[in-house]
Amino acid sequence: MRRIVLTLSYDGTDFQGWQIQKKGRSVQGEIQKALVKLHQGDEIKLTGSGRTDSGVHATGQVAHFDTGLASIPSERFRDALNSLLSHDIRVLDSQLAPYPDFHTRFDAHRRMYKYYISNKEVCAAHVYNYTWLTRKTLDLAILNEMAEVITGIHDFTTFTSAQDQSKSRVREIFSAGFSREGEMIVFHIAGNAFLWKMVRSLTGTFLHYCDNGYKADKIKEILEARDRSLAGPTAPARGLFLTKVNYGSQNPFR
Amino acid sequence: MRRIVLTLSYDGTDFQGWQIQKKGRSVQGEIQKALVKLHQGDEIKLTGSGRTDSGVHATGQVAHFDTGLASIPSERFRDALNSLLSHDIRVLDSQLAPYPDFHTRFDAHRRMYKYYISNKEVCAAHVYNYTWLTRKTLDLAILNEMAEVITGIHDFTTFTSAQDQSKSRVREIFSAGFSREGEMIVFHIAGNAFLWKMVRSLTGTFLHYCDNGYKADKIKEILEARDRSLAGPTAPARGLFLTKVNYGSQNPFR
Repeated sequence: MRRIVLTLSYDGTDFQGWQIQKKGRSVQGEIQKALVKLHQGDEIKLTGSGRTDSGVHATGQVAHFDTGLASIPSERFRDALNSLLSHDIRVLDSQLAPYPDFHTRFDAHRRMYKYYISNKEVCAAHVYNYTWLTRKTLDLAILNEMAEVITGIHDFTTFTSAQDQSKSRVREIFSAGFSREGEMIVFHIAGNAFLWKMVRSLTGTFLHYCDNGYKADKIKEILEARDRSLAGPTAPARGLFLTKVNYGSQNPFR
Repeated sequence: MRRIVLTLSYDGTDFQGWQIQKKGRSVQGEIQKALVKLHQGDEIKLTGSGRTDSGVHATGQVAHFDTGLASIPSERFRDALNSLLSHDIRVLDSQLAPYPDFHTRFDAHRRMYKYYISNKEVCAAHVYNYTWLTRKTLDLAILNEMAEVITGIHDFTTFTSAQDQSKSRVREIFSAGFSREGEMIVFHIAGNAFLWKMVRSLTGTFLHYCDNGYKADKIKEILEARDRSLAGPTAPARGLFLTKVNYGSQNPFR
C-alpha cells in the first residue's frame, strides 16, 4: 500500500462543500468517485486537511488516500484523476506521502486563507463568484489594525457559528492583514486551525465595524467578550479561498 | 426619446453568444428581457458594438437602446438593469449617448481583445473557464515577432472562418502583442474591426507555429497566401475577452 497526497484546486460555486453528503455534489465525493473508477470499483476513502463550506474555493487544499494499485506512479495520479474529474476540480500535484502514516488533517501545522473583496459599485461578471462585492466604506490602515488584534492565541467564540462543535475555541493566528491585489482588496490569514465560518465571520465583522466608523479597540472588546452576538454579518462564501496547508517546518507540497 | 449607452461585462460560459437566437440563452436576449420589464412590456431593441461567440467573455462590450421612459435618469439604468439580470451579466456603466444618432456598432473606431493563455501542465479550477490551458512550447519573443507581422492593413482571409459573411476581409490592426499578467500569458490586440473567429484563429495559429519551431516569416507567408487551410487550430472561446470599444478620438465610455 502507498499513501498518496494530493494538492487540490476547486471552484466551490457548484459544490455543497468539501464533505461528502447523502444528497448533492461534494468535492470529496467527486474525487472518491474518480478514485473508485481508477481502482476498478474498490471504495477509496479520501481524507482532507479540513472541510470547506458550500461556495468556498481552494487553490491549495491537501488530501490523502491509500492505494494498492501498483500500475500508477505516485506523480501520475494527478493526470489520471484530472482526466476523470469535471473542470471545477483540478488536481495540481500528486506524490507519495513523506512517511507512511502521514495525515493531511492531523499533521497540518498551518492553514492559509485569502478572502477577496471588490470594494466598488459593480464588478466584472466573470469575477462575481470569486469575490464579495461591497460598497462599504473601507480604510485599509484601520482594517490592518483590526487584523493585528486577532493575531496570537485567543478564544474565538465571538467569531464562530453557534453550531460549531469544537471542544475548544482557542486558536492561534500567525498572521492576518489586508492588502491590494490589482483591483481587489485581499484579507489574508494564517493560523494553526480555524473554527467553523471563522474567516468569513472575521472578514464580515472587520468590514462592518470599519464601515460604521469603529477602530481596532472595538475588535479587541468584542473578541474578549466571547459573545457571538457582537460579531458583524458573516461575509459570503464566494470570496473565500483555502490557499495553502503547511506540514512541519518543511512543506513538501506546493 | 433618449439613446442610452451601456458598458457591459459578461461571463460567456453559459451563453450561446451575444446575439439573440430562437433557442438558447444570449446576452442580447437576456438584457432585452430586462429592458422589456423596465418598460412595462414594450419591446426594446438593444444594439451592440459587435457579436461575441458562445463562451467568449466581455469586460468592455458597448451597446445602446432608445427609451421613452422619463422616470429613470440615464446613469441609473445601470443599477436598474443589474437588479433584473443574473450575475453573469453586469452593466458597468450607463449614460446618455453623446449625440442623438450615436451608434455603438457603426461609430466604433477601435475594438480591443485580450486572450488569456495558461502555459502550464494544470491550472487552478476557478480560472478554467477564462483561459486556454496549453502545454505547447511558447517563446514570448518569437510570438511578439509573429504578432508584429499582422499589424497594419491586411487581408485576413487566412485567419477567418469559411462561413464569414464579410464583403471585404481587409482589416486594420493597430497593435498586437504578447505579455505576462501574473501566471498568465496574454495576447492583446486592437483593430478597427475583426472577422468572425479572427482573434481566436490568430492566437491558435501563432501558438501552433511557435510550438512547431517556426518563426515570424512563416506567419508572413501564410497571411499573404490568403488561404484558410494554412491557419493553425482555432483557440478555444473561453480564453477570449472583449475588453474595450473606442469611439472617435475621445472615448466617453470606461
